[in-house]
Amino acid sequence: MAEASRTTEARRDAVFGRWVVFSPARSRRPTDLKSHNPTNPSPAAGEPRPSCPFCAGRESECAPQIFRVPPDGSLPWRIRVIENLYPALRRDLEPPPAAAPDAEEEEEPGERAVPGFGFHDVVIETPSHDVRLWDLPAEGVRDVLLAYAARVRQLAEHPAVKYVQVFKNHGASAGASMAHSHSQMLGTPFVPPSVTSRLNCMKEVFDRSGNCSLCDFRSKDILISETPNFSAIVPFAASYPFEIWIIPRQHLSYFHEIDQHKALDLGSLLKTMLQKLSKQLNDPPFNFMIHSAPFGLSSSCLPYAHWFLQIVPQLSVIGGFELGSGCYINPVFPEDAAKILRELSCST
Amino acid sequence: MAEASRTTEARRDAVFGRWVVFSPARSRRPTDLKSHNPTNPSPAAGEPRPSCPFCAGRESECAPQIFRVPPDGSLPWRIRVIENLYPALRRDLEPPPAAAPDAEEEEEPGERAVPGFGFHDVVIETPSHDVRLWDLPAEGVRDVLLAYAARVRQLAEHPAVKYVQVFKNHGASAGASMAHSHSQMLGTPFVPPSVTSRLNCMKEVFDRSGNCSLCDFRSKDILISETPNFSAIVPFAASYPFEIWIIPRQHLSYFHEIDQHKALDLGSLLKTMLQKLSKQLNDPPFNFMIHSAPFGLSSSCLPYAHWFLQIVPQLSVIGGFELGSGCYINPVFPEDAAKILRELSCST
Repeated sequence: MAEASRTTEARRDAVFGRWVVFSPARSRRPTDLKSHNPTNPSPAAGEPRPSCPFCAGRESECAPQIFRVPPDGSLPWRIRVIENLYPALRRDLEPPPAAAPDAEEEEEPGERAVPGFGFHDVVIETPSHDVRLWDLPAEGVRDVLLAYAARVRQLAEHPAVKYVQVFKNHGASAGASMAHSHSQMLGTPFVPPSVTSRLNCMKEVFDRSGNCSLCDFRSKDILISETPNFSAIVPFAASYPFEIWIIPRQHLSYFHEIDQHKALDLGSLLKTMLQKLSKQLNDPPFNFMIHSAPFGLSSSCLPYAHWFLQIVPQLSVIGGFELGSGCYINPVFPEDAAKILRELSCST
Repeated sequence: MAEASRTTEARRDAVFGRWVVFSPARSRRPTDLKSHNPTNPSPAAGEPRPSCPFCAGRESECAPQIFRVPPDGSLPWRIRVIENLYPALRRDLEPPPAAAPDAEEEEEPGERAVPGFGFHDVVIETPSHDVRLWDLPAEGVRDVLLAYAARVRQLAEHPAVKYVQVFKNHGASAGASMAHSHSQMLGTPFVPPSVTSRLNCMKEVFDRSGNCSLCDFRSKDILISETPNFSAIVPFAASYPFEIWIIPRQHLSYFHEIDQHKALDLGSLLKTMLQKLSKQLNDPPFNFMIHSAPFGLSSSCLPYAHWFLQIVPQLSVIGGFELGSGCYINPVFPEDAAKILRELSCST
């Protein structure tokens, strides 16, 4: 087996600039790695969950609705976008004064406190309690992605919102407080630190090489699957075992500009990847995050800003080394994880 | 109560430059926050643990010893520094060629892979299975800190080692695979990403203000306790509830230069802080990390490089927002956490 011959290696990626230590000796064989914490060991389809406010019929117990799919209220809803009942950032606070364009660089460094203005929304992906995102047909996943994009476009209109982080937590140990399938997004009045450091790293690579870090990747060995518009890979310096990135094959900076056609392509690939992770890793808790560009990026940034979707199964515990150094230890080489996921067949 | 009047706020710190959202509405009262996952609910003192290789009498089952305290082998050991049996980085691989001084800046950005050379050592803090670090007398904690410093000084001699991350994982969900009290350190052939971004942030503050970010902090409200040489605070923009930083009051760049006298002072304060966290938060899993400076820092970096020790109790789950944005949500304001910890009395 390929992995038997591997020895410890440190790798740095061209997107986050993070070092990751690949240490196969610290684990069993990659194929033996499973979640000990499956999120849904025995889904009881159709079982009523009278206490879940995300279920059809309980809409009045939720925070206000922003929009629904389909918009026609005489038809049953398939997707609802609502406010978060316990928002981390609050839309009712005074937004910070809008800075002059390009003023970001001039901002005073150091300690700063601002009112916790922002938006925290929830996307209920299905009216049914026991349906998981990857149980939906590809068209259903497409519609969830299009709902994200539509809400991001609305938030982009607000002059104080600098970025929208779209994410999904699946399973309690991945941060999901509700079992009913949903995603979230936070519109922040600042550009989050990981977004800044990602763009700085991609700029450095671009300035030196003239290439976008995500427009091509070195090796077919890390490819899991390809569609006309997207590639699914295990990144060259994956921080987590079986981490997956889904990357548009065309150079595109903003997720929220996605069209119907590409959203169906992405929905189909995302569904397949989530099925594969569930099957290979025993339905692990996971997170996915959409990494896009801050709003109002100047055109000089666009050549290196390339959006992608990152899926992180939660299989290992983060300890003091990772917290302190920002450097991760991964027991599974990306080439081995990609091979396992590539060869795994999933019924569709 | 003070916390009742608080409203959501976003803060950025002057050390990591990270934004943290303080969102008190998402939690109960700060005093109600407890670990649901206590690491040691009923310590059975003195109970023999025949399967633990860190216990006295089982030394032959461990990886090779590097040194012991006291060095005199005719006396029983109190501390052992040994190699990690399952090292993340390997001392037997070829080290990368030593770069010319100041060559770091010229390094090509982008993807890179190097052999996983490095050192991964373990500090067994006590021969007794059921003794926790904060059960030791202050002199015992001092000796553990001095053992860290002595080993870091040894590793600093190796031309390929750029940084040593000293850390402790307490409790399985904080990453500890052994219950017997121990710490670890990793000597890396690169400067870890968090170290680089921390020094960049502190440099920016220094260049603008002429001040070291850690030489003074704004408010007495975040102070927990002070000794002649150290301050324990809840940092202004703590990423985690009840996070504590112990900071030398004098401007010092390197932990490993600590002397006996200061190590006793730090040992006493660290003991008290761990006791307080254990009492207040129901013996939570935690990590602590020593944040020092990379070896061979030029003298121009020294004015802003200031070492400190960070303690992070693990009370909350990290979700997709934090993973994606690098921005944390903390339900407890630092001033409230500091007040609770300041007023809590611990028997010593």
